[in-house]
Amino acid sequence: MLNVAPPSGMRDFLPGELSHRKYLENVIRKIFEIHGFVSIETPAIENLSTLLGKYGVEGDQLIYRILHRREKLSRALGSGSPSETDLAELGLRYDLTVPLARFMANNRDLPRFFRRYQLQPVWRADRPGKGRFREFTQCDVDITGTKSLLAEAEVCGAVSSVLLELGFFDFTIQINHRELLKCLIAAAGLEPSFEEPSLVAIDKLDKIGKEGVWKELLERGITASQAEKLLSFFQSELNCKLPENETSKSPQKEAGEFCELSRLENLLDNSPAAQASKKPLSQLKDLLSIASAGPAKGRLRFDASLARGLSYYTGPIFEIRSPKCKGSLGGGGRYDGLIGMFSGFEIPAVGFSIGFERLAMVMDELNLFPNLPQNPEVLICCFPEISPSEVVRIATILRSENIRVEIFPETPKIGKQIGYAESVGAKATVILGTEEIIHNRLTAKFLSSGEQITLPTPEAIIKIKSWFSKAKPTAV
Amino acid sequence: MLNVAPPSGMRDFLPGELSHRKYLENVIRKIFEIHGFVSIETPAIENLSTLLGKYGVEGDQLIYRILHRREKLSRALGSGSPSETDLAELGLRYDLTVPLARFMANNRDLPRFFRRYQLQPVWRADRPGKGRFREFTQCDVDITGTKSLLAEAEVCGAVSSVLLELGFFDFTIQINHRELLKCLIAAAGLEPSFEEPSLVAIDKLDKIGKEGVWKELLERGITASQAEKLLSFFQSELNCKLPENETSKSPQKEAGEFCELSRLENLLDNSPAAQASKKPLSQLKDLLSIASAGPAKGRLRFDASLARGLSYYTGPIFEIRSPKCKGSLGGGGRYDGLIGMFSGFEIPAVGFSIGFERLAMVMDELNLFPNLPQNPEVLICCFPEISPSEVVRIATILRSENIRVEIFPETPKIGKQIGYAESVGAKATVILGTEEIIHNRLTAKFLSSGEQITLPTPEAIIKIKSWFSKAKPTAV
Repeated sequence: MLNVAPPSGMRDFLPGELSHRKYLENVIRKIFEIHGFVSIETPAIENLSTLLGKYGVEGDQLIYRILHRREKLSRALGSGSPSETDLAELGLRYDLTVPLARFMANNRDLPRFFRRYQLQPVWRADRPGKGRFREFTQCDVDITGTKSLLAEAEVCGAVSSVLLELGFFDFTIQINHRELLKCLIAAAGLEPSFEEPSLVAIDKLDKIGKEGVWKELLERGITASQAEKLLSFFQSELNCKLPENETSKSPQKEAGEFCELSRLENLLDNSPAAQASKKPLSQLKDLLSIASAGPAKGRLRFDASLARGLSYYTGPIFEIRSPKCKGSLGGGGRYDGLIGMFSGFEIPAVGFSIGFERLAMVMDELNLFPNLPQNPEVLICCFPEISPSEVVRIATILRSENIRVEIFPETPKIGKQIGYAESVGAKATVILGTEEIIHNRLTAKFLSSGEQITLPTPEAIIKIKSWFSKAKPTAV
Repeated sequence: MLNVAPPSGMRDFLPGELSHRKYLENVIRKIFEIHGFVSIETPAIENLSTLLGKYGVEGDQLIYRILHRREKLSRALGSGSPSETDLAELGLRYDLTVPLARFMANNRDLPRFFRRYQLQPVWRADRPGKGRFREFTQCDVDITGTKSLLAEAEVCGAVSSVLLELGFFDFTIQINHRELLKCLIAAAGLEPSFEEPSLVAIDKLDKIGKEGVWKELLERGITASQAEKLLSFFQSELNCKLPENETSKSPQKEAGEFCELSRLENLLDNSPAAQASKKPLSQLKDLLSIASAGPAKGRLRFDASLARGLSYYTGPIFEIRSPKCKGSLGGGGRYDGLIGMFSGFEIPAVGFSIGFERLAMVMDELNLFPNLPQNPEVLICCFPEISPSEVVRIATILRSENIRVEIFPETPKIGKQIGYAESVGAKATVILGTEEIIHNRLTAKFLSSGEQITLPTPEAIIKIKSWFSKAKPTAV
């Protein structure tokens, strides 16, 4: 017997779950389009030269590579001892940001300020776990072509709108700045070569705590006093709680944000990094006030310890937190250097990625999905003496009225057919016998109430529709 | 400099083309759901054991294989001379039918008559060409669990509805029956072992003509008289023209279909295959009359030479033809054996696959796509003295009115900003200056007429909306 489960970390989506995912997708598309973003798609398969070296050493190892075929494969295998590099030159999309960068370089006629969103699956050969899959949907929104902080505010606003529309009211967006982190690292007396390992360690602060990070810093060759100094810059508790009146702007809270920024400013004041920290600190203050004029109002929280794993960020960075969910619901930041690696000249950019899979999971747990249409509304049942042509004719009439109709394709006893209608969640049955055909009438039964009618076809259709309108599911 | 084009046979989709594809997708989803089908998705990556041996030898060679990683790769490479089989156990989805069969076996609680549609990309390492890509979208609709011809009629009806809704009025669905083809092959005096090569050759009749097929049959070891006999069963011209009044039922035409079936019946009458041909001939007649009671009315054409390439078909087979398009716009058929290969017991099934890529291409050529929204409706321009917070505040107000708003993120001269609005296809600009902010007014310009207004914000919004309602694009 064949193994019929999907490969490890991959999923089959049944109609119920898929209708939830399509709802989520449609809300995201609608909101992003209102925010002036347009959609693009890129191929699942990219050249490995596009993908490698963008995600760090660990990322590179998680890229799925496509085995050479025919002559290329024979040549590689014939060479004696082929290496991984000899066997593949194509790989599967690992995220949506690197493909965007390549896309920008490949399509030179795009608007100068290109505002794109993209919602497609990506593949990572990661260890599968709860909520972690090897094929998963990403959803990114980016603005390219400007260094203006309006771009940061716009992506934070668009993402906040999506979360609010979906029914999340208690999220925050933690913000920080890569340049500020570099200043903190310098202020702790560390050489620039320690920047990347320090960022990787700081990124784990909320997972392994100060002690864990301290240990990791030491393992990476940082002295105890440097590690202590570095950690002293971070608050002891992450500041991601919401003000009490969660939907209104909270001036106290925002004043608090500025205090926290000032605290750091003071700490850095006498360090050699004081000068360099002025720009990121002032950008963060500006971003806090610009974004608070839009849907991200009251959501932004400065968090000096937010680091983000990816190496391409160059400016402000973001991460969505919610008490409803361990880990983040999304994240992003400014990456002014990445597109230039493909286009040959710098194109600044900022982006935000929504954690589609995590959102879907949390919404399921919290019952945030509306009641969505997915089953047929009417199942047509019929007696054996009715010709299949008549059944198709009646189905066609009902469908032309926008009723979702399924035909029971065989003719066991009517009770069995009605039982099937109930088992698949149909709302009503239409039962065809000789009388109905001769007199051009329909017999229909509303399954939830048991009400049964026999009426001329047009009146019957009106009645059937009135049954459904009682509990019409929400559409996007 | 990096190569920034997508890999050979792969595509980037820009916003304009993608909005067409999304429109096409939405029409298909809407119509299939009205016809009582529900949507599923399967992973892009399947076990090679699932994929191999289902598509014929040529198909197997076109499957993209995923290179082993880490230990598995080291082990394979360390073994000395690894083969293709040692280097991969996963592959990319090649079609949607085999994944459905695996899905059915993996999800045992599905309704007995499972009516699913699926719209996802597939990957084939085929030679790329005009309209032929290595990543392309397929769109399948299938009914499992019954041998009733109602299922054939239902998938033909659903597909016809889609084509009619999209604006195709001159397509036909060619039909034939695999069992009938086998009878013809037997009646020509060929052993069953010649069935598969004969089908492959007959499948090319419309491409290479009778002479070409005759040659190919001889190359495969069939005698000249057998080949001649076999070819004598097929009409000299493919009968895919529509009756003159193409949208109405044409009784003459359908009588013609039955004549053609009777012609074959007579030809087979004295052959040893006469008895075996009774069932497929009567099924085809029944299908013609059942389907003609629904949206496929007047579309079905019997074509004895229709063979279909795939080996898993067991009953009626279909193919959509249109004078608008060389080749087919889709095809399908009954495959009663495939699901059983995965589930261990027979589950009959019939399916129809719409040629999504070809439809999109032909619709583009024929201008069948409606005018779809994709650009921002309003671009907000502003003078340098306006704070970015004010811009975000105004954008938020407009967006809350469901207007698609983009913000110009920098502050060059206003004329330059308006020029940008025109270049990206915005319908109107909102221009923010100190006066507007102080007096809570909006200045807006309708770009196509040049009309400019300055009004209190609520009245301005009403005016802006009235501009857009003049030429509201069609939504699905």
